[in-house]
Formats: sequence, C-alpha cells, structure tokens
Amino acid sequence: VPSPPRADSLVDAAINGDRGAVARLLSLVETGGAEARAVVAALYPRTGDVYTVGITGAPGAGKSTLTDRLVERIRRDGDEVGVLAIDPTSPFSGGAILGDRIRMQDHATDPGVFIRSMATRGHLGGLALATPQAIRVLDAAGKPWVVVETVGVGQVEVEIAGEADTTVVVVTPGWGDAIQANKAGLLEIADVFVVNKADRAGARDAVRDLEAMLDLASPGRTWRPPVTETVAIDGTGTAELWDAVLAHREHLFERGELSDRRHARLRTELKAIVAAALEQRAEALCEGAGFDDLAARVAARELDPYRAADELVGGVPDETA
Amino acid sequence: VPSPPRADSLVDAAINGDRGAVARLLSLVETGGAEARAVVAALYPRTGDVYTVGITGAPGAGKSTLTDRLVERIRRDGDEVGVLAIDPTSPFSGGAILGDRIRMQDHATDPGVFIRSMATRGHLGGLALATPQAIRVLDAAGKPWVVVETVGVGQVEVEIAGEADTTVVVVTPGWGDAIQANKAGLLEIADVFVVNKADRAGARDAVRDLEAMLDLASPGRTWRPPVTETVAIDGTGTAELWDAVLAHREHLFERGELSDRRHARLRTELKAIVAAALEQRAEALCEGAGFDDLAARVAARELDPYRAADELVGGVPDETA
Repeated sequence: VPSPPRADSLVDAAINGDRGAVARLLSLVETGGAEARAVVAALYPRTGDVYTVGITGAPGAGKSTLTDRLVERIRRDGDEVGVLAIDPTSPFSGGAILGDRIRMQDHATDPGVFIRSMATRGHLGGLALATPQAIRVLDAAGKPWVVVETVGVGQVEVEIAGEADTTVVVVTPGWGDAIQANKAGLLEIADVFVVNKADRAGARDAVRDLEAMLDLASPGRTWRPPVTETVAIDGTGTAELWDAVLAHREHLFERGELSDRRHARLRTELKAIVAAALEQRAEALCEGAGFDDLAARVAARELDPYRAADELVGGVPDETA
Repeated sequence: VPSPPRADSLVDAAINGDRGAVARLLSLVETGGAEARAVVAALYPRTGDVYTVGITGAPGAGKSTLTDRLVERIRRDGDEVGVLAIDPTSPFSGGAILGDRIRMQDHATDPGVFIRSMATRGHLGGLALATPQAIRVLDAAGKPWVVVETVGVGQVEVEIAGEADTTVVVVTPGWGDAIQANKAGLLEIADVFVVNKADRAGARDAVRDLEAMLDLASPGRTWRPPVTETVAIDGTGTAELWDAVLAHREHLFERGELSDRRHARLRTELKAIVAAALEQRAEALCEGAGFDDLAARVAARELDPYRAADELVGGVPDETA
C-alpha cells in the first residue's frame, strides 16, 4: 500500500537539500511498485526545470571520464548537477558501485553533485521507465542539470540516452567496428558527437567519417550535430564540448523545439507505462482462479480460445482482435 | 464485421471435402482479425482428433524431403495428412510457394494430402498464434495427421514445432555448430531425434553426441528420445523414423500424457491470446483521442504519468504496478 505522507515528506526533505532523502527516493523509483508511484505523484508537480544531457557510446570510449569533466565544468559555473550512470548489464545498483564510478570520487564530498548508478532490472518496464523517474527526483531536488550516462550502445542504452534534451555520442579513433551495428540508431539520437582520445592515431579519420556520415544524413534537419574532439583524461577539448552542448540547448530554446521534444518524450513514456500496465494485467489474468476454469472449458470444447480470452480480458469481444 | 454464417458454411464445405474451402479457411485464420475469430468459433467444436507431428532443425538439414517421406508413409497406410510449412522469414505464404515445396508436387494431385506454406507476419501474435488455428482447420477438415515443418531453429520456429504432439528434431553430420545456439531449446522439445544424411561422414559421431547429450539430460524423464538415422533423399530409415513417432504417440496415450500435453498447450495458447489482445488494446488506447488530452494534461503537470496511464487503462489504479 502506498504511503503518500511518507513520499510527500521525503520529497519535501529532498527539496530542502537532504541527500539521504534523495538517495531514498531514487531507490524507491528504481524498485518500482506502489511506493514508486506515490513518489512520482508527490514530486511530479515540482519538476520541469531540469536540463538533461545524455552520454552514450561504446564501452571503453571514455564516457565516465568525459562525464566527470562535464561535471567539473558545470560546477565551475556554480550550478549543481546530478549524474545517473545507467548499466542494464550490471547486477549492482545504488550509489557509486560501478568500478568506473571511483573516478567520480573527486566529487564525493561536494554537496552540489549527486551521483547514482542504476542497474535494476526488476522495475516494471525496466530502466527505460525508471530513468525518467530518477531524473524527476534530481529535478525536484533542485539540480538544474542531470547527466545520464549509459555504459554501451545496446538498444536500451541508446533509447535511454536518446531521451535527453541534448544527447552526446562518444566515439574513439577506430570506432567504426565497435558501433557499426547501431550506427543508424546513434546517428538518429546524436545532437553532439565527440571523438574522445583525440590524441590517438586515426582521430582525424574518425572526424572525417562522422562528417561524411552527417553530409548524407537527413538534409532537412535544422541542427547539424557538431563533431568535437576531446582527450577526456587531461581535459583537452572539454570546454568546446560543453559549448557545443550549450549551443544545442540554445538552438532548442530559440526554435521552441525543447518543449516539442519534451512533449514527444512524455507521450513515449505514457505509452510505455500503458503497455507495461497491460502486460502486467495479462500476467495477473493468467494467474487468477478464473483462468483455470476457462482453460478447462476450452479443453472441454465448450468455449473456443478467443472467446475464453474475451471473457478473461473482460468486456465485449474486440472485433479487431 | 465477422460473418458467422459464412464461416459456418465454409467449415461445412471443408468438412465435406471441399479443398477450396479449406484453402479459404487457412487464408482467413492466417490473416487474423474478426473473420479469423469467426472461423475459429465455427470450427473449434469440430476439432480434437488430429495428431500433430512437428519437424524442426537447421536450414539445409533436409526437413522438407523428410516431411515428404513421412507424407508418403502416412498415405501408404491410407490416412489423409495435412502439411503446414512455417517460414517466419519468408514474405510469401499461401499454397506451395516456397522453393522446396516443389518437391511436394508428387502429392499435388493427391486429394488425401493438403500442403500449405505459412509465412504471414501480420497476424496478431504472429505465426505462433496462427499455426494452432491452421491445424484446427485441417483437423476439422478430417485430416487425422498434420505435419508442421518449420524452416529453421529460431525461437519462433522451435516454439511452433515444440507445440506438436510429437516433435522431431532433424540434425545432420557436423550439425553441432549450426544449432549450438539453441541446443538446450531443441533438447527440451525433441521427442525423436533424426540424424539425416546419415550416409555422410560423421553420422556416427552425430548419433554419439546426441546420445551423450541425452545421457546428461533430465534423468527423471519417462521418455528418452530415440535417435534415428535417415537418408531422406532415397527414403532410407524413413520407416524406422515413423516407427519412432508412433512409439512416442503410443507412450503418450498409454500414460495419459497426451491430454496433459494438449491441456498445457491450450493454456499456453490462451495466455498468448490474452497478451496479444491486451497489447492491441494498449496500442488502441495510445491512438485514441483521450490519449492526446491526457498527454497534454501530463505536460501541463496537472497529472503525473502513472495517474494518466491509470485513466487511460481504466479502472482503479493498480496498486502493484
């Protein structure tokens, strides 16, 4: 049973800067269930101000280090920032558990930075549904920026990173093979490209490849993703990368595309919640007592399978099914 | 809108041996929709007598030729037989369109054999849901045997072939690599193994591999799948293969497992129909006028996304979602 007063008071505490409350809220939305819903209900009216930056790219491309640099850059402007490191392949979640999170320890004592790894697969609809809720927690907690970093270029990861206001796709010299499989998907979601490890051989080729790819891509686009170069390990190029993110943000604001983009995202999320709810209902229907009865009647040929499904699902037969 | 009198009269015609009616009914259940439901409703009470044999294995294993041999064997006993060749990868369906169906032309003028290729992907729930309905058409049309042959060892194909009363898994010498990926799945569904092309080098090794695998597999099983050897192209071993199928059928009858198996299959089918119906409902909900309204209210932060989904799905909020 949800406990709205508890969710409300946690949200109040989070808004007042209680890091423990933020952590608790993130755990609740990550776990899913009735409490997650109560949390979302309590915090949703206090959200809408955050700007999200997604970072994705093949494993080993240096996404964590790059995220770390962007966090430093944001903090230098005096802004607070949240980081969500999404790893659908990891059994671990909560706090800085991932190995590469260790690099984030510079920020561990900075109250202006909140870092969280998310890996839970138990949530209804998975990480794709949990991530927007986690962003809302950080949004309500007053972070104007949230960086969503995903570990790889799998479908879920690209989907999650692509649901940001600005999506940064990280490649490295010789990247071609590693992400070939999902090149079209990455091209579709990228607002900014970065060639990281740009001090290595082949960096210029990588930039040229990307530019050539962009020359071919949808000529009708009003924004051509800039291709920046970084050496995240020593900070080279971070300023230019951040400028590219800000330029894209400016572009979205100016053209009114930011709210279009966010509306589209909400619609996608709403569809995913509806699908997950009905999927869960289907499972519940097929575990209930009525199911055994109906299955027995079908076996006895008193009822055909479609008619039995109608009775389970309830309501009139769906003429289009 | 369904037209029950039409479905009923088609079913009557099919029962009276009208091949055109059988073909039309197969097309209807393959296409799905309201007419498919009307057909299933009309024919379901006239079904339950067919015995189904599934044939699956890697492409090139000789499944079509083997099916052809089994059809000859069944016809020699004077029984009629239906063949469903299921190809989820083909854009073609209806009649003997697949290239390897040409080998079936020996039976083309035999009124005791009905051969049909199925490839439609449009059906709600896909071929996995359409196949049982097609089997019911042939069942109602009086075929005591239906052979369901699938083209490969993909998940859908193994699932479909595994839903037969007796499932035959075809391998060839050196088969190991080709089906390694789904070895466990094949082991689970196999009631009879065949090493086809048994005149080739490595046939004995293939048999030994299978026997070794079966030695390790679930010792509690009451039926150990026999491993037979065939050279389908010249008919060698076909009699022994068919004897193995009949032995398995006898085993199921004697132990009362046939009806258990069929009940379990009906339950699985019923669940799949429920899931497909709710999936379709989710899509319909997200295309209706109410969706745009609710999405706008969510964007305006009047409503959180979960509450909006509840309103769309209807009824009280699901406390477990």
